[in-house]
Amino acid sequence: MTVRLRAATRDDVPVIAELIRGLARYEKLEDHVEMTEELLAAGLFGERPYAEVVLAEEDGVALGFALFFHNFSTFLGRPGIYLEDLFVLPEHRGLGIGRMLLAHLARLAVERGCGRLEWAVLDWNRDAIGFYESLGARPNSEWTVYRLTGEALTGLARQ
Amino acid sequence: MTVRLRAATRDDVPVIAELIRGLARYEKLEDHVEMTEELLAAGLFGERPYAEVVLAEEDGVALGFALFFHNFSTFLGRPGIYLEDLFVLPEHRGLGIGRMLLAHLARLAVERGCGRLEWAVLDWNRDAIGFYESLGARPNSEWTVYRLTGEALTGLARQ
Repeated sequence: MTVRLRAATRDDVPVIAELIRGLARYEKLEDHVEMTEELLAAGLFGERPYAEVVLAEEDGVALGFALFFHNFSTFLGRPGIYLEDLFVLPEHRGLGIGRMLLAHLARLAVERGCGRLEWAVLDWNRDAIGFYESLGARPNSEWTVYRLTGEALTGLARQ
Repeated sequence: MTVRLRAATRDDVPVIAELIRGLARYEKLEDHVEMTEELLAAGLFGERPYAEVVLAEEDGVALGFALFFHNFSTFLGRPGIYLEDLFVLPEHRGLGIGRMLLAHLARLAVERGCGRLEWAVLDWNRDAIGFYESLGARPNSEWTVYRLTGEALTGLARQ
Protein backbone atom coordinates (compact mmCIF):
# COMPACT_ATOMS: atom_id res chain seq x y z
CA MET A 1 0.00 0.00 0.00
CA THR A 2 1.33 3.43 -0.94
CA VAL A 3 -0.71 6.13 0.70
CA ARG A 4 0.07 9.68 -0.33
CA LEU A 5 -1.00 12.90 1.33
CA ARG A 6 -1.82 16.05 -0.57
CA ALA A 7 -3.54 19.37 0.01
CA ALA A 8 -7.11 19.30 -1.31
CA THR A 9 -8.22 21.69 -4.06
CA ARG A 10 -11.63 22.98 -5.12
CA ASP A 11 -12.04 19.95 -7.42
CA ASP A 12 -11.99 17.73 -4.33
CA VAL A 13 -15.10 19.27 -2.74
CA PRO A 14 -17.39 16.30 -3.63
CA VAL A 15 -14.83 13.86 -2.18
CA ILE A 16 -14.42 15.93 1.00
CA ALA A 17 -18.20 16.21 1.38
CA GLU A 18 -18.55 12.42 1.07
CA LEU A 19 -15.82 11.87 3.70
CA ILE A 20 -17.57 14.30 6.07
CA ARG A 21 -20.83 12.40 5.56
CA GLY A 22 -18.89 9.17 6.20
CA LEU A 23 -17.59 10.57 9.47
CA ALA A 24 -21.11 11.63 10.46
CA ARG A 25 -22.48 8.16 9.64
CA TYR A 26 -19.70 6.60 11.70
CA GLU A 27 -20.64 8.84 14.64
CA LYS A 28 -24.36 8.15 14.05
CA LEU A 29 -24.84 11.91 13.66
CA GLU A 30 -25.81 12.00 9.99
CA ASP A 31 -28.99 13.95 10.75
CA HIS A 32 -26.84 16.74 12.25
CA VAL A 33 -25.12 17.44 8.91
CA GLU A 34 -26.23 20.74 7.36
CA MET A 35 -23.14 20.97 5.15
CA THR A 36 -23.64 21.18 1.40
CA GLU A 37 -21.01 21.10 -1.35
CA GLU A 38 -21.78 24.76 -2.09
CA LEU A 39 -21.16 25.80 1.53
CA LEU A 40 -17.99 23.69 1.64
CA ALA A 41 -16.62 25.20 -1.59
CA ALA A 42 -17.29 28.70 -0.25
CA GLY A 43 -15.77 28.00 3.18
CA LEU A 44 -12.65 26.19 2.01
CA PHE A 45 -11.94 27.74 -1.39
CA GLY A 46 -13.84 31.03 -1.43
CA GLU A 47 -12.57 34.59 -1.10
CA ARG A 48 -11.63 33.93 2.51
CA PRO A 49 -10.65 30.30 3.13
CA TYR A 50 -11.55 29.32 6.70
CA ALA A 51 -9.88 25.90 6.83
CA GLU A 52 -7.54 23.58 4.92
CA VAL A 53 -7.92 19.93 4.02
CA VAL A 54 -5.31 17.20 3.53
CA LEU A 55 -6.40 14.05 1.72
CA ALA A 56 -4.85 10.61 2.19
CA GLU A 57 -5.09 8.72 -1.11
CA GLU A 58 -4.14 5.37 -2.56
CA ASP A 59 -4.11 5.20 -6.36
CA GLY A 60 -6.08 8.42 -6.48
CA VAL A 61 -8.83 7.14 -4.15
CA ALA A 62 -9.36 9.09 -0.93
CA LEU A 63 -9.15 6.88 2.18
CA GLY A 64 -9.19 9.62 4.78
CA PHE A 65 -8.80 13.30 5.47
CA ALA A 66 -7.81 15.92 7.98
CA LEU A 67 -9.50 19.33 8.13
CA PHE A 68 -7.72 22.01 10.13
CA PHE A 69 -7.40 25.75 10.68
CA HIS A 70 -5.17 28.09 12.60
CA ASN A 71 -5.92 29.23 16.10
CA PHE A 72 -3.83 31.75 18.07
CA SER A 73 -2.37 31.67 21.57
CA THR A 74 -1.99 35.07 23.21
CA PHE A 75 0.34 33.66 25.87
CA LEU A 76 2.67 32.21 23.21
CA GLY A 77 2.06 35.13 20.84
CA ARG A 78 1.99 32.52 18.07
CA PRO A 79 -0.54 30.70 15.93
CA GLY A 80 -1.30 27.03 16.42
CA ILE A 81 -2.97 24.37 14.31
CA TYR A 82 -6.38 23.10 15.37
CA LEU A 83 -7.43 19.79 13.87
CA GLU A 84 -11.21 19.86 13.49
CA ASP A 85 -11.72 16.46 11.85
CA LEU A 86 -9.52 13.43 11.32
CA PHE A 87 -11.24 10.51 9.61
CA VAL A 88 -10.08 7.30 7.96
CA LEU A 89 -12.61 5.04 6.26
CA PRO A 90 -13.35 2.17 8.68
CA GLU A 91 -12.18 -0.48 6.16
CA HIS A 92 -8.75 1.20 5.93
CA ARG A 93 -8.01 1.56 9.65
CA GLY A 94 -5.02 0.10 11.44
CA LEU A 95 -2.62 0.91 8.61
CA GLY A 96 -1.19 4.07 10.15
CA ILE A 97 -3.07 6.53 7.94
CA GLY A 98 -4.32 8.53 10.92
CA ARG A 99 -0.80 8.75 12.28
CA MET A 100 0.50 9.88 8.84
CA LEU A 101 -2.07 12.67 8.81
CA LEU A 102 -1.22 13.76 12.37
CA ALA A 103 2.53 13.70 11.63
CA HIS A 104 1.91 15.78 8.50
CA LEU A 105 0.05 18.39 10.59
CA ALA A 106 2.87 18.38 13.16
CA ARG A 107 5.34 19.13 10.34
CA LEU A 108 3.10 21.93 9.02
CA ALA A 109 2.86 23.33 12.55
CA VAL A 110 6.67 23.41 12.89
CA GLU A 111 7.16 24.85 9.37
CA ARG A 112 4.63 27.61 10.03
CA GLY A 113 6.07 28.62 13.40
CA CYS A 114 3.14 27.30 15.40
CA GLY A 115 3.50 26.52 19.08
CA ARG A 116 0.81 23.85 19.35
CA LEU A 117 -1.22 21.22 17.55
CA GLU A 118 -4.63 20.72 19.21
CA TRP A 119 -7.84 18.80 18.71
CA ALA A 120 -10.86 17.69 20.74
CA VAL A 121 -11.75 14.13 21.65
CA LEU A 122 -14.91 12.62 23.15
CA ASP A 123 -14.24 11.77 26.80
CA TRP A 124 -15.41 8.16 26.40
CA ASN A 125 -13.18 7.41 23.40
CA ARG A 126 -10.48 5.56 25.39
CA ASP A 127 -8.79 4.04 22.29
CA ALA A 128 -8.30 7.45 20.70
CA ILE A 129 -7.15 8.97 24.00
CA GLY A 130 -4.60 6.17 24.51
CA PHE A 131 -3.23 6.78 21.01
CA TYR A 132 -3.03 10.56 21.52
CA GLU A 133 -1.29 10.17 24.89
CA SER A 134 1.22 7.77 23.29
CA LEU A 135 2.16 10.65 20.97
CA GLY A 136 2.77 12.90 23.97
CA ALA A 137 -0.47 14.89 23.72
CA ARG A 138 -1.89 16.15 27.02
CA PRO A 139 -5.48 17.05 27.91
CA ASN A 140 -6.69 20.56 28.81
CA SER A 141 -8.97 18.84 31.30
CA GLU A 142 -9.95 21.91 33.30
CA TRP A 143 -11.44 23.78 30.30
CA THR A 144 -14.92 23.41 28.80
CA VAL A 145 -15.97 24.97 25.51
CA TYR A 146 -19.21 26.96 25.60
CA ARG A 147 -21.19 27.46 22.42
CA LEU A 148 -23.72 30.09 21.40
CA THR A 149 -25.75 29.15 18.34
CA GLY A 150 -29.18 29.55 16.73
CA GLU A 151 -31.60 31.87 18.51
CA ALA A 152 -29.22 32.52 21.41
CA LEU A 153 -26.59 33.80 18.95
CA THR A 154 -28.93 36.01 16.94
CA GLY A 155 -30.52 37.22 20.19
CA LEU A 156 -27.18 38.43 21.56
CA ALA A 157 -26.34 39.94 18.16
CA ARG A 158 -29.46 42.15 18.43
CA GLN A 159 -28.41 43.61 21.82
CA MET B 1 -19.23 56.49 30.63
CA THR B 2 -19.10 56.12 26.85
CA VAL B 3 -17.27 52.98 25.89
CA ARG B 4 -16.60 52.48 22.21
CA LEU B 5 -15.50 49.34 20.43
CA ARG B 6 -13.19 49.33 17.44
CA ALA B 7 -11.03 46.89 15.50
CA ALA B 8 -7.39 47.12 16.58
CA THR B 9 -4.68 48.12 14.11
CA ARG B 10 -0.93 47.55 14.03
CA ASP B 11 -0.42 50.77 16.04
CA ASP B 12 -2.31 49.13 18.92
CA VAL B 13 0.18 46.28 19.38
CA PRO B 14 1.77 47.76 22.55
CA VAL B 15 -1.70 48.28 24.08
CA ILE B 16 -2.82 44.74 23.17
CA ALA B 17 0.42 43.30 24.59
CA GLU B 18 -0.16 45.17 27.86
CA LEU B 19 -3.75 43.89 28.08
CA ILE B 20 -2.55 40.31 27.47
CA ARG B 21 0.02 40.76 30.25
CA GLY B 22 -2.78 42.17 32.44
CA LEU B 23 -4.88 39.06 31.77
CA ALA B 24 -1.93 36.82 32.62
CA ARG B 25 -1.29 38.72 35.86
CA TYR B 26 -4.97 38.40 36.75
CA GLU B 27 -4.76 34.63 36.16
CA LYS B 28 -1.45 34.47 38.08
CA LEU B 29 0.13 33.01 34.92
CA GLU B 30 2.49 35.85 34.07
CA ASP B 31 5.48 33.51 33.92
CA HIS B 32 3.73 31.53 31.15
CA VAL B 33 3.73 34.50 28.77
CA GLU B 34 6.21 34.05 25.90
CA MET B 35 4.44 36.65 23.73
CA THR B 36 6.48 39.65 22.55
CA GLU B 37 5.26 42.71 20.66
CA GLU B 38 7.19 41.51 17.60
CA LEU B 39 5.44 38.12 17.63
CA LEU B 40 2.08 39.79 18.18
CA ALA B 41 2.59 42.24 15.31
CA ALA B 42 3.55 39.35 13.01
CA GLY B 43 0.66 37.13 14.10
CA LEU B 44 -2.08 39.76 14.00
CA PHE B 45 -0.93 42.16 11.30
CA GLY B 46 1.63 40.22 9.24
CA GLU B 47 1.31 38.69 5.78
CA ARG B 48 -1.15 36.13 7.14
CA PRO B 49 -3.21 37.49 10.04
CA TYR B 50 -4.13 34.64 12.40
CA ALA B 51 -6.53 36.49 14.68
CA GLU B 52 -8.42 39.77 15.10
CA VAL B 53 -8.67 42.08 18.09
CA VAL B 54 -11.49 44.39 19.21
CA LEU B 55 -10.62 47.07 21.76
CA ALA B 56 -13.07 48.60 24.23
CA GLU B 57 -12.03 52.21 24.88
CA GLU B 58 -13.16 55.19 26.91
CA ASP B 59 -11.69 58.53 25.81
CA GLY B 60 -9.08 56.67 23.80
CA VAL B 61 -7.92 54.55 26.76
CA ALA B 62 -8.26 50.78 26.36
CA LEU B 63 -10.29 49.16 29.16
CA GLY B 64 -10.59 45.69 27.67
CA PHE B 65 -10.24 43.57 24.58
CA ALA B 66 -11.44 40.49 22.75
CA LEU B 67 -9.12 38.42 20.56
CA PHE B 68 -10.80 35.96 18.20
CA PHE B 69 -10.30 33.91 15.06
CA HIS B 70 -12.45 31.80 12.76
CA ASN B 71 -12.90 28.09 13.23
CA PHE B 72 -14.87 25.83 10.88
CA SER B 73 -17.59 23.26 11.47
CA THR B 74 -17.70 20.44 8.93
CA PHE B 75 -21.19 19.41 10.06
CA LEU B 76 -22.53 22.94 9.49
CA GLY B 77 -20.26 23.51 6.48
CA ARG B 78 -19.77 27.02 7.85
CA PRO B 79 -17.15 29.00 9.74
CA GLY B 80 -17.64 30.01 13.34
CA ILE B 81 -16.03 32.58 15.61
CA TYR B 82 -13.81 31.34 18.43
CA LEU B 83 -13.16 33.84 21.20
CA GLU B 84 -9.68 33.13 22.55
CA ASP B 85 -9.45 35.93 25.12
CA LEU B 86 -11.94 38.32 26.65
CA PHE B 87 -10.54 40.63 29.29
CA VAL B 88 -11.72 43.77 31.03
CA LEU B 89 -9.39 45.58 33.45
CA PRO B 90 -10.47 44.61 36.99
CA GLU B 91 -11.16 48.26 37.95
CA HIS B 92 -13.65 48.59 35.06
CA ARG B 93 -15.70 45.45 35.66
CA GLY B 94 -19.45 45.34 36.26
CA LEU B 95 -20.18 48.05 33.69
CA GLY B 96 -21.23 45.71 30.91
CA ILE B 97 -18.04 45.99 28.84
CA GLY B 98 -17.62 42.20 28.61
CA ARG B 99 -21.20 41.86 27.44
CA MET B 100 -20.66 44.64 24.84
CA LEU B 101 -17.66 42.75 23.48
CA LEU B 102 -19.56 39.44 23.34
CA ALA B 103 -22.57 41.08 21.64
CA HIS B 104 -20.19 42.66 19.11
CA LEU B 105 -18.74 39.24 18.30
CA ALA B 106 -22.24 37.77 17.99
CA ARG B 107 -23.07 40.51 15.45
CA LEU B 108 -19.84 39.79 13.53
CA ALA B 109 -20.70 36.07 13.55
CA VAL B 110 -24.15 36.75 12.07
CA GLU B 111 -22.78 39.25 9.50
CA ARG B 112 -20.11 36.78 8.37
CA GLY B 113 -22.47 33.83 8.01
CA CYS B 114 -21.05 31.94 10.99
CA GLY B 115 -23.07 29.23 12.70
CA ARG B 116 -21.53 29.50 16.15
CA LEU B 117 -19.71 31.68 18.65
CA GLU B 118 -17.54 29.59 20.97
CA TRP B 119 -15.02 30.03 23.76
CA ALA B 120 -13.48 28.01 26.59
CA VAL B 121 -14.00 28.58 30.30
CA LEU B 122 -12.25 27.16 33.35
CA ASP B 123 -14.54 24.58 34.99
CA TRP B 124 -14.30 26.23 38.43
CA ASN B 125 -15.23 29.72 37.18
CA ARG B 126 -18.88 29.55 38.32
CA ASP B 127 -19.49 33.32 37.93
CA ALA B 128 -18.39 33.27 34.31
CA ILE B 129 -20.35 30.08 33.61
CA GLY B 130 -23.50 31.57 35.12
CA PHE B 131 -23.12 34.66 32.92
CA TYR B 132 -22.51 32.57 29.78
CA GLU B 133 -25.51 30.33 30.49
CA SER B 134 -27.69 33.43 31.02
CA LEU B 135 -26.81 34.38 27.42
CA GLY B 136 -27.98 30.96 26.20
CA ALA B 137 -24.52 29.43 25.74
CA ARG B 138 -24.31 25.67 26.31
CA PRO B 139 -21.27 23.56 27.29
CA ASN B 140 -19.66 20.92 25.08
CA SER B 141 -19.13 18.96 28.26
CA GLU B 142 -18.26 15.62 26.67
CA TRP B 143 -15.27 16.93 24.71
CA THR B 144 -11.71 17.49 25.95
CA VAL B 145 -9.03 19.33 23.98
CA TYR B 146 -5.72 17.51 23.63
CA ARG B 147 -2.56 19.49 22.99
CA LEU B 148 0.75 18.52 21.42
CA THR B 149 3.53 21.03 22.07
CA GLY B 150 7.29 21.34 22.59
CA GLU B 151 9.30 18.13 22.17
CA ALA B 152 6.20 15.99 21.58
CA LEU B 153 5.23 18.20 18.63
CA THR B 154 8.69 18.32 17.04
CA GLY B 155 9.09 14.58 17.69
CA LEU B 156 5.91 13.75 15.76
CA ALA B 157 6.95 16.19 13.02
CA ARG B 158 10.14 14.15 12.49
CA GLN B 159 8.25 10.88 11.93
